[in-house]
Amino acid sequence: MPLAGVRDNPTHLTQLEEWLRSYRPEELFDEHGRPRPEVLACVPEGDRRLGATPHANGGLLLRELPMAPLERFAVPVDKPGATLHEPTRVLSDLLESVMADTADRRDFRLVGPDETASNRLQAVFDASGKAWQAGTLESDEHLDRHGRVMEILSEHTCQGWLEGYLLTGRHGLFSCYEAFVHIVDSMVNQHIKWLRTSRALPWRAPVASLNYLLTSHVWRQDHNGFSHQDPGFVDHVLNKSPEVVRVYLPPDANTLLSVADHALRSRDHVNVIVAGKQPCFDWLSLDEARLHCARGAGAWEWAGTETAGREPDVVLACAGDVPTQEVLAAAGLLRRHLPDLAVRVVNVVDLARLMPHEEHPHGMADPEYDALFTTDKPVIFAYHGYPWLIHRLAYRRTGHAHLHVRGYKEMGTTTTPFDMVVRNDLDRYRLVMDVIDRTPGLGVRAVGVRQAMADARTRHHAWIREHGTDMPEIADWSWDG
Amino acid sequence: MPLAGVRDNPTHLTQLEEWLRSYRPEELFDEHGRPRPEVLACVPEGDRRLGATPHANGGLLLRELPMAPLERFAVPVDKPGATLHEPTRVLSDLLESVMADTADRRDFRLVGPDETASNRLQAVFDASGKAWQAGTLESDEHLDRHGRVMEILSEHTCQGWLEGYLLTGRHGLFSCYEAFVHIVDSMVNQHIKWLRTSRALPWRAPVASLNYLLTSHVWRQDHNGFSHQDPGFVDHVLNKSPEVVRVYLPPDANTLLSVADHALRSRDHVNVIVAGKQPCFDWLSLDEARLHCARGAGAWEWAGTETAGREPDVVLACAGDVPTQEVLAAAGLLRRHLPDLAVRVVNVVDLARLMPHEEHPHGMADPEYDALFTTDKPVIFAYHGYPWLIHRLAYRRTGHAHLHVRGYKEMGTTTTPFDMVVRNDLDRYRLVMDVIDRTPGLGVRAVGVRQAMADARTRHHAWIREHGTDMPEIADWSWDG
Repeated sequence: MPLAGVRDNPTHLTQLEEWLRSYRPEELFDEHGRPRPEVLACVPEGDRRLGATPHANGGLLLRELPMAPLERFAVPVDKPGATLHEPTRVLSDLLESVMADTADRRDFRLVGPDETASNRLQAVFDASGKAWQAGTLESDEHLDRHGRVMEILSEHTCQGWLEGYLLTGRHGLFSCYEAFVHIVDSMVNQHIKWLRTSRALPWRAPVASLNYLLTSHVWRQDHNGFSHQDPGFVDHVLNKSPEVVRVYLPPDANTLLSVADHALRSRDHVNVIVAGKQPCFDWLSLDEARLHCARGAGAWEWAGTETAGREPDVVLACAGDVPTQEVLAAAGLLRRHLPDLAVRVVNVVDLARLMPHEEHPHGMADPEYDALFTTDKPVIFAYHGYPWLIHRLAYRRTGHAHLHVRGYKEMGTTTTPFDMVVRNDLDRYRLVMDVIDRTPGLGVRAVGVRQAMADARTRHHAWIREHGTDMPEIADWSWDG
Repeated sequence: MPLAGVRDNPTHLTQLEEWLRSYRPEELFDEHGRPRPEVLACVPEGDRRLGATPHANGGLLLRELPMAPLERFAVPVDKPGATLHEPTRVLSDLLESVMADTADRRDFRLVGPDETASNRLQAVFDASGKAWQAGTLESDEHLDRHGRVMEILSEHTCQGWLEGYLLTGRHGLFSCYEAFVHIVDSMVNQHIKWLRTSRALPWRAPVASLNYLLTSHVWRQDHNGFSHQDPGFVDHVLNKSPEVVRVYLPPDANTLLSVADHALRSRDHVNVIVAGKQPCFDWLSLDEARLHCARGAGAWEWAGTETAGREPDVVLACAGDVPTQEVLAAAGLLRRHLPDLAVRVVNVVDLARLMPHEEHPHGMADPEYDALFTTDKPVIFAYHGYPWLIHRLAYRRTGHAHLHVRGYKEMGTTTTPFDMVVRNDLDRYRLVMDVIDRTPGLGVRAVGVRQAMADARTRHHAWIREHGTDMPEIADWSWDG
């Protein structure tokens, strides 16, 4: 840079020449400009060349992870919503199996700033302790000098560890509180840029994906409150190169298994998986979950009231575990109170399915999107995060003007689980009111139902102030389809 | 938490009682449950109480900044686009003045991870050196034990310094490379949550706003390239509480002065100002800049070709310095090649103006938005950052289906300034093609112009490979309105 004027400035040109001559090129090159043999003698050969060492091109060293059949970990589901499981605890068995089956190879690590056990992933400790080099006390648990679970209360360090691990040809998963993964926003930027660029270089072998499990999410911070509520990491990564970024919001335990299995087998991606650790209804059997996740989005016919062969009157869509529960509860209320209304329930696991096909490789072609969401019916979409993200993904769709999204709008605090969805207008009662307000001709007919929904929100408000817990109709709710 | 079962568990209840009795309440309270006098004797009074000290309620200590008249710093603009200035260098004179006028009070600081001088802010050194406590060498410049410019290559530390500084009743500005301000994503989250919450507490006095100057931005990274290109901080903060967040994209030096003056006087906000440090055409005089910034968005009639009293055929909108230049260049091409086309040019300084009035206090009411952007004409919007952000802000507007946005779509690299806009389809030639493609009936008539635009892009491609610099028609372009 100091010699930037070399074209027009003879002094700079002279300085440049002096600098280059200081390397004594006449000793290094022969009269044809070729390096002399004594120079070439110290150049290593083959894989020992700096640009050819497989340790700097980790994909060359990468081995497939041994993935056991998911049937070993899946929860049985005979009918939807009849049982509850903690999704991350079910995932924990899958991770334990990977950890056990790589005990010799030692090429899979679980990193995280938070307590692996608090995130219900403690089954992994059956296969590996936590890495710990210092002294131990008798009261210590799961510490191991060779542990492959790596905990440190620094998201930066976790991210750095895992990036280095992946780039040198190994595998891993980063489990993190959803709100605090923003700490690595700038680091994941650079990793995505790296992957985007390296995918274009034919000699760079694909590496294992960088997998995030975001748990302890925005809707379940009953004790921590506002400071722990931020679902915006998804918005951040979806700004980046679509070749690289994948976002999954599995609605239950079996869909989480299917998504995690896919993520751990994938290459050169950044996979963001958002899943709760609290008890969650089981909606899909393993086979159903696999098909649903492969599709990425689909109608749950058992949950709606539409008649085969006829268009629905309204679409209730959802993405994320808590929104899915609220949408199913709203669908149940509509079935009871407005039985003639044809309701379609759609669940979205793979968020990029909403994007145009030209903008993301997972994006649906318009005919598929139009068939699923209709082009002219109201779509009430309950989304896990900031609601405008869904608009940003779907704004080009024909039916976009009919799309109405509910989600987290920064109305956070320390309160009951149901009050969180009420404060953000994502609750079942509000969703039913949205259906009534936006389905042409329904408002006047359904004024009594609408009023009952508004009253339920008022009763909720009074109840939690008196009892400190959610109303029994909420706390004890279950799907009675 | 370990005693959570106290209501139903007698053992837990006993443990709770033992724990509480360990404080010996009988020594602390009298028979009516009032604290005994000897206990109250050690309680401080007035401002010395922990909850009343003004040092923890900094707004009580806050003094207005002495702001000199902007006329002292403004650049003269007789006609638009006739002169060039580096906007941050012009701002630097304003900051120097604030720094000088607070020399006694010492309550204004400039923090930043990058070189204050590299960001063209070096005029401040006339009023204060950089804070430096260690020894100095003769070759050191601008180091001062009492300096109020604080540089450290850690965005985290800069953010922490400034937050503490503001919360204790003082003022400041954080200047940062645009791409790397993501490093403090998680910290600014918490500061915005704090401000949102403290605004609701009547006893909390307002504090000075947290002001960001994001410079060395995405479009001007000719040497640093892809790793230094990320305009997504704006997306991040716009997800947060609208009462708190403000985003400004001044298109030239005088608008930057007006925006910065407003930000430094404001309270309880997070102001994000995006402005370049490279030479930029001066479009508005100070008076025009003040009016334009107060409006937040407006038509630049001198730049378009519409006839007063008649609707335009197409709207060319822009936000940000580089997009503004490309839009004006496109408007010039349209004036020359398609003189009958009625083009309106709109510039947006205050991004939240695009949002619905119900969603952000700065949002335009629909009638104003509809008048400015029309409800049915194509709007080609050239935006500084990720294009879908504009859709996310404007999706509820009547004319949204006619809105077409160009912006940075992660097509970054090390290249010429104009090639950056070409790669991201934000260049003048592409904008003219967009106008032709989207204005009903224009395509067939304007096929020759469209072809000339496509050819200019092809010539550009070949030229930069041969010469390593932009074509003369680009490098020497100026507004000839």
